[in-house]
Amino acid sequence: MKTWSQQTREEGKTLGLVPTMGYLHEGHLSLAHKSLSTCDRTVVSIFVNPKQFGPNEDLDTYPRDLESDRLELERLGVDALFLPTSEDMYPEEFQTYVHVEEITDKLCGESRRELFRGVTTLVLKLFHIVKPYSAFFGEKDRQQLEVIRKMVDDLNLDIQIVGLPIVREPDGLAMSSRNQYLGNTERKTAKSLNEALQKAQQLIAQGESSAETIRSRIRTIIEREGQAQVDYISVCDPKRFEELEEIQGKTMIALAVHVGKARLIDNCLIERI
Amino acid sequence: MKTWSQQTREEGKTLGLVPTMGYLHEGHLSLAHKSLSTCDRTVVSIFVNPKQFGPNEDLDTYPRDLESDRLELERLGVDALFLPTSEDMYPEEFQTYVHVEEITDKLCGESRRELFRGVTTLVLKLFHIVKPYSAFFGEKDRQQLEVIRKMVDDLNLDIQIVGLPIVREPDGLAMSSRNQYLGNTERKTAKSLNEALQKAQQLIAQGESSAETIRSRIRTIIEREGQAQVDYISVCDPKRFEELEEIQGKTMIALAVHVGKARLIDNCLIERI
Repeated sequence: MKTWSQQTREEGKTLGLVPTMGYLHEGHLSLAHKSLSTCDRTVVSIFVNPKQFGPNEDLDTYPRDLESDRLELERLGVDALFLPTSEDMYPEEFQTYVHVEEITDKLCGESRRELFRGVTTLVLKLFHIVKPYSAFFGEKDRQQLEVIRKMVDDLNLDIQIVGLPIVREPDGLAMSSRNQYLGNTERKTAKSLNEALQKAQQLIAQGESSAETIRSRIRTIIEREGQAQVDYISVCDPKRFEELEEIQGKTMIALAVHVGKARLIDNCLIERI
Repeated sequence: MKTWSQQTREEGKTLGLVPTMGYLHEGHLSLAHKSLSTCDRTVVSIFVNPKQFGPNEDLDTYPRDLESDRLELERLGVDALFLPTSEDMYPEEFQTYVHVEEITDKLCGESRRELFRGVTTLVLKLFHIVKPYSAFFGEKDRQQLEVIRKMVDDLNLDIQIVGLPIVREPDGLAMSSRNQYLGNTERKTAKSLNEALQKAQQLIAQGESSAETIRSRIRTIIEREGQAQVDYISVCDPKRFEELEEIQGKTMIALAVHVGKARLIDNCLIERI
């Protein structure tokens, strides 16, 4: 991978990187498509990163379908597929971690302590190996996107971080590799995440400015379905993820909800002026 | 700095980096000299890194003499001097740290908890800014050298890390910017670190293989002078810094001793076959 990247750079070509855990859906493909249309060459990496799963999480059952992923990426015209093994990335004596503090304590970092340290460590390794000009991430994981931006700034990396909008199923459910864990009735519950975000946006557009009212309305919509177990419902500022009282200026509404075996997340950004 | 480095690389020139905290002595200059003789261009950075000082350490009193340093480096023919400010390196919202675990718990890491996380974070930032082909470090800080090598390996960096031998004063004291803290009688005590290492090497050459005997002989020599307060005396393997019982194969002997206001370190590598 390093040799190919080095050669690409020496030819004066710009390189785009799309880091993924595979089992690709339209969200991933939109990232690859953006890279293909803005960079000379595109690398997609597929690596189910053990360092970002907690001890009781779904590392072993995380869905994989390399053959289908490979065909999709070939069809799109991606130039290289990077498929490191766990042993490649984390040899036995591996002991170096990159950690963005503060903003990783909130939201997903609060219930998934291992998550962001694992993400930033892997992403920095990928950056060093691929040395991309741009790297593409989905806004479904908006906290992850901001954590990576912060790492890039703090560590003086010259990589353009591009965030792209959430891609949704026809019924509004944000695309996720974990959606395949959902049974039929769970799927109905899952839909309520987006419905709740839509309702929240509508209420704010109509003048509601109390964050607590919004949180409570979202909770009501999600818990109506019965099968949902809320991890968090957040109305916060979109850079530091500090909970707000009054909704004003740029605001993020973010949710994490367990539905059956799946932990689903969704979010939206609003600006109230 | 980034622009200059980028330009140098585009000209196909190799770049050597010598990271320092300034107040340069012959040890630093030997690193710069090696870089000048093996790389096309040499950058020396001077930055007293606040992140590697503990709350009760000597950050505020650490010696500085930029004008003298600049003249020395000019005389040597160094191509660029990089002088970032604390605000450049650690703006207000800075929150990203690189940490090599395990091997940083031992030796200097045990008594200076902040040290290595601060060193690796800064050095990685310097690597990203300067993007050197080689970087040069002194073996006086042999644990630091190994920690940096581990970071480079674990994070897939393409930088050659070069360690160079300790440079000593005529009386054997390892050169250090902190030696200037020493008064005349303290200086006599300070000399005993190297004397103890010499004695240890001699005993081992004569057949002594008990690490505990060596530690105890070193302690006796150092404490003889009265003004010394031992932080650690270590006989360990030189990669993981685990204490040995039996001296066999490659072994590191390392000391840290407080003498007056100065905390002095010294070490040697031996191989017993």
